[in-house]
Amino acid sequence: MKAAVVLLSGGLDSATTLAVARAEGYACHALSFAYGQRHKAELDAADAVAAQLRAVEHRLMPIDLGAFGGSALTDTSIAVPESPTDGIPVTYVPARNTVFLALALAWSEVLGARDIFIGVNAVDYSGYPDCRPAFISAFETLANLATKVGVEAAADAAGAASRIRIHTPLIDLSKAKIIRRGLDLGVDYAVTVSCYQPDDGGAACGRCDSCRLRRQGFDEAGVADPTRYL
Amino acid sequence: MKAAVVLLSGGLDSATTLAVARAEGYACHALSFAYGQRHKAELDAADAVAAQLRAVEHRLMPIDLGAFGGSALTDTSIAVPESPTDGIPVTYVPARNTVFLALALAWSEVLGARDIFIGVNAVDYSGYPDCRPAFISAFETLANLATKVGVEAAADAAGAASRIRIHTPLIDLSKAKIIRRGLDLGVDYAVTVSCYQPDDGGAACGRCDSCRLRRQGFDEAGVADPTRYL
Repeated sequence: MKAAVVLLSGGLDSATTLAVARAEGYACHALSFAYGQRHKAELDAADAVAAQLRAVEHRLMPIDLGAFGGSALTDTSIAVPESPTDGIPVTYVPARNTVFLALALAWSEVLGARDIFIGVNAVDYSGYPDCRPAFISAFETLANLATKVGVEAAADAAGAASRIRIHTPLIDLSKAKIIRRGLDLGVDYAVTVSCYQPDDGGAACGRCDSCRLRRQGFDEAGVADPTRYL
Repeated sequence: MKAAVVLLSGGLDSATTLAVARAEGYACHALSFAYGQRHKAELDAADAVAAQLRAVEHRLMPIDLGAFGGSALTDTSIAVPESPTDGIPVTYVPARNTVFLALALAWSEVLGARDIFIGVNAVDYSGYPDCRPAFISAFETLANLATKVGVEAAADAAGAASRIRIHTPLIDLSKAKIIRRGLDLGVDYAVTVSCYQPDDGGAACGRCDSCRLRRQGFDEAGVADPTRYL
């Protein structure tokens, strides 16, 4: 089995991504971050998801983006909006996916892995710039310039050395399609937490942007929503 | 004064970079990392340099790249080489500059800064892939796709909103030229630490790749080497 690093937040999208990576035959090294988010419930969920979907390893890395602030997700003095807003919302965490992918890249190079999975989605999403295909493509280019692995692949005219690839299996899927794909692969969405402000036990607010998109997804998929709401 | 984030390791190159950024009129927010390096002497040096060159602020962020391992600089079971090696040396830290620039980007966006300085050099350097102009250029492209600031600049047809820029004032300079430039700007190289394995007080080994390049630089610049050697 080839190794891959899979970014795992504990939410619906990253759980589905882990299931897809496993179904594609990768030995999955799951990576989560304690980045100063408001709550730990999503990290507990990540643990449960990693175990359920049989990641070979699950690492939790502390990285204090809260020290910089600037987002409703890392600064409790900024309220989480409960209705859709125009433009990029205050739940955007500056450069979060750039930081997460950079750390995934560091780990993958040490592991000898050339494949990184991230559950970004550019259909039913919150409008974050670092979820778009152009961002992912630019990161993949960067990754192959940044690393020893990338330099070796570029120098290998025979093409035996693989380039680093950033896999985004959900990027073009609606939330409903993501849910159907995950259910087909055996994901138990009851253990995932998507809410921006759940309680300590992981019960969801039902009102934030992330809850709204998730609930719509279950509705459109025509399956029962297993989310525990407050 | 416009704000800039300046990556500061405590070595000769980043000290010079901070001096250049200040001379160009930026209010400099210096950023250092406790990333699992073998020694703390370079962080003490970074503190001294930030104070001497009047950074408006100096942040030290812990980020445990040592947890991943894979480099002589973060894993004490891998020896630091004391003679030049072919290819990319074992002192390469996987994806280090990608991680550092990603975090600088996160902070700069919160600060409202559009300018990031990094003291990479592609002349007298150790052959790390993430010091090359192509890497920096790819990161700048990424930064403008990754962020709210970048999206706003791209959407602003009048060009009033600035793009994010990654400044590398040393990239084409020999070590001797870097030293002359720094001396012109008042850098006190006695407080900087470039050695990969200094003692606790910051005295340099004089034998590693970094010491060798630094010593040659002072020789070629024709100035006295203020480094304290063991």
